Amino acid sequence: MTLTFDSSRRSAKVRSLKDVGEWGMLKRLLPRLPGLDKKRCLVGPGDDAAVFRARPGTAAWVFTTDMLVEGVHFDLRWTTPEDLGFKALAVNLSDLAAMGRVRPSVGVVSAGLPPSLPADFAERFYRGMAPLARRHEFVPVGGDTVRSDRVVVSVAVLGELPRGARPLTRSGARPGDVLMVTGTLGDAAAGLDILRKRGKGRVPLLTSDENFLVRRLLRPEPRIDLAGKIAGLSGVTAMMDCSDGARRSAQLIADASGVGVTLEADLLPVSSELFRWAGSGKDRARELALVGGEDYELVLAARPPAARLLSGRGWARPIGRVVRGRGVNVMNLDPVKRRRFHEHEHFQ
Amino acid sequence: MTLTFDSSRRSAKVRSLKDVGEWGMLKRLLPRLPGLDKKRCLVGPGDDAAVFRARPGTAAWVFTTDMLVEGVHFDLRWTTPEDLGFKALAVNLSDLAAMGRVRPSVGVVSAGLPPSLPADFAERFYRGMAPLARRHEFVPVGGDTVRSDRVVVSVAVLGELPRGARPLTRSGARPGDVLMVTGTLGDAAAGLDILRKRGKGRVPLLTSDENFLVRRLLRPEPRIDLAGKIAGLSGVTAMMDCSDGARRSAQLIADASGVGVTLEADLLPVSSELFRWAGSGKDRARELALVGGEDYELVLAARPPAARLLSGRGWARPIGRVVRGRGVNVMNLDPVKRRRFHEHEHFQ
Repeated sequence: MTLTFDSSRRSAKVRSLKDVGEWGMLKRLLPRLPGLDKKRCLVGPGDDAAVFRARPGTAAWVFTTDMLVEGVHFDLRWTTPEDLGFKALAVNLSDLAAMGRVRPSVGVVSAGLPPSLPADFAERFYRGMAPLARRHEFVPVGGDTVRSDRVVVSVAVLGELPRGARPLTRSGARPGDVLMVTGTLGDAAAGLDILRKRGKGRVPLLTSDENFLVRRLLRPEPRIDLAGKIAGLSGVTAMMDCSDGARRSAQLIADASGVGVTLEADLLPVSSELFRWAGSGKDRARELALVGGEDYELVLAARPPAARLLSGRGWARPIGRVVRGRGVNVMNLDPVKRRRFHEHEHFQ
Repeated sequence: MTLTFDSSRRSAKVRSLKDVGEWGMLKRLLPRLPGLDKKRCLVGPGDDAAVFRARPGTAAWVFTTDMLVEGVHFDLRWTTPEDLGFKALAVNLSDLAAMGRVRPSVGVVSAGLPPSLPADFAERFYRGMAPLARRHEFVPVGGDTVRSDRVVVSVAVLGELPRGARPLTRSGARPGDVLMVTGTLGDAAAGLDILRKRGKGRVPLLTSDENFLVRRLLRPEPRIDLAGKIAGLSGVTAMMDCSDGARRSAQLIADASGVGVTLEADLLPVSSELFRWAGSGKDRARELALVGGEDYELVLAARPPAARLLSGRGWARPIGRVVRGRGVNVMNLDPVKRRRFHEHEHFQ
C-alpha cells in the first residue's frame, strides 16, 4: 500500500481529486470507514500494510494491496508480461517486508486486460510471477480477470506475523534515532531514465551498468529476509519500504512519528553502476538517490546501538538523524543545485 | 471471483485474448501457478473464492477478489460513487456467501481514479460501502489509491470459515440433485435495460417497479445470512453466486461437477416487478431470468430431501435437475423464441 503525503499542499479551491492530493483524500475518507475494532485491527490504514487477527489471542496476519496501471506505473513498450507479473507481486511482498518479520502466505490477483493483447499475455504474466512466489513460499490462490481498455493489475497478499513478532510501523521513530536504508538508492529512477530515452527511438544495446539499473526498476527484489533479520533486533523503532524516494520516505516516517528528520545527502548509498552511469553528473546520481522512486529498499529508524549493529552487519546504512520538530531537512546538498525536486504525487 | 466458461468456443486461430476467452486463458495459466499446497489451499482457483489455512489444524479463511472497470462493469452516468462503493463490496461478499457459512472479516480496497473526478468522489465511495460493511461486521483495513484514466476498483476480502463448517464448491453436484436458486432472477438485467434507455436522453421519472429493478442492479444484497443457513443443511452438494445468469451458473456447476443440468425455464422465479415491467412481453421476463446477469442470488444443487426442506422454508426454489451427461438443456422455452441468447464472455 502506498499512501503519499505532501505537507506543502494547501489548496484554497478544492474541486477535484487533483486539488486534494491522495493524502487529503484519505484523510477525508478515513473517518467514514466502519469503526476499526482495535482488537481485530492492530495496524489500520495509513501504513505499508494492515495487521489484523480474527480475535484476541489468535495469530496476526499482514494484509496489503497494490494496483499497477498501464501508462502510470508501467509502460508496455519496455515492460514484458513477465516483468509485470514479477513486479506486481514484488511491490506487494515489499509492503509485507516493510512491516517486519512477515512470512508471505497467499494472495489473489485481479487483472483488467484489453482483448487485443496477445493470447499468451496472461500466461507470461504468471510465468514472471512464479519464481518470486516460489522463492518466498507464496501461493496465489485465486483471482479475477476482466476486460479493460488498459492493463490494470491489482494484487492483494497476506503474510503471517509469527507469534511474538511485533509489526514495525512508520510511527515509532524517536528523536535521537538514526535513519537508515538497506541497499542502494536511485538505481530504479536511472533505469526509468534509460528506458524512456530508448523509448524515443534511440535503441542502443544496454551496457552492463545500464542493464543493472533497468533490472532494478523492472525486477525489484522485496527485502523479505532482510526485514525479518532487522525486525529481530531490539531498538529498531520504525520501518517502511522506499517506493517513492528517500526524501519522501523520511517525510512519511517523520509525519507518522511526529518528529523531524535531517537527511545527509552525501550519506545516501549509491551503487557503483549508478555512479559510473551518471559520469560527470555526480550530482545527478545523488539527486536520483534522494528523490528517485521504486527502489523498494527499506527505510528504518533505529536507536544508536541498534544502528551500529545494523551497520556492522551490513544490513543497512545511516542516511540521517531523527530530531525534534517537524519535516525533513536535507543537508550537504549543493546549494546551487538545490531546487524543488520533482516528486511523485499520485493525483498530479 | 468470476471465471466464465463457454464450452462452445473452439477457435482455430488463437492470436489474442479475445480468441482465447477468459476460461481458455485461465486454463493456460493455472499450470504455471506455483504448486498449490493441498494442506494450505483447500479450494484453489476456479471457484467463487479460495479457501486456505496457515497450516493443518488452524482455522480456514475464504479469500476472493473482484475488479470493476468503468465502461465495462458500471457506467458513471447512472452509478453514483455511493452505488459503486456498495457494489464493489457487495460482489465480493457475494463470492464469500457462495462458499457457504462464511463470516466476513476484513478486506483491502484498490482504486484507480482519474484526477478530474470531483474531490468528494472517494469519500462518497466509502460512504456507500460503510453501511453494508457494518451490517456484515466487515472492516476495510487498508488500500491503495492510484491515478488512472478510468475508474477501476479492486476489492479483496477475507472471510472466516467457522470450525466444522465445510466450504461449498461448484463441483459437488450429483445426478438426481435438484438445482435451485434463492430470490428472483432477471431483475438486474431489466434494471440495466431501464438505465440504458434513460442514458439515451429520455429521462422519465422511474416508476416504483423500475426503481426496484434498478436497485437490484446497483445495490445487490449479498446473501451472506441465507448462505449460512443453506450450508447448515446436509444434502446441499454445490453452490455458487449467480453473477452471469442462471444458464451460465448451471453450465459452470455442470462443468465443474462433471454432470449435466436440465433447466426448466417456466420454473425460473421472476419478481412481480419484473413481470409487470415486461408487460405483454412475458417471454422477455423469462429470457432475462435465464440469461440476465448480476442478480447475485445463490444457485445451488441439493439432494431431493434437502431441496424439499429448502423449498418449505422459502430459502430457495427449484429451477431444474442435475442429470448424467454434459451441458445444460433448457426445457419449456417457446421454440419459436428459442435462439442464441446473448451471453456474457468477458473477453468478447
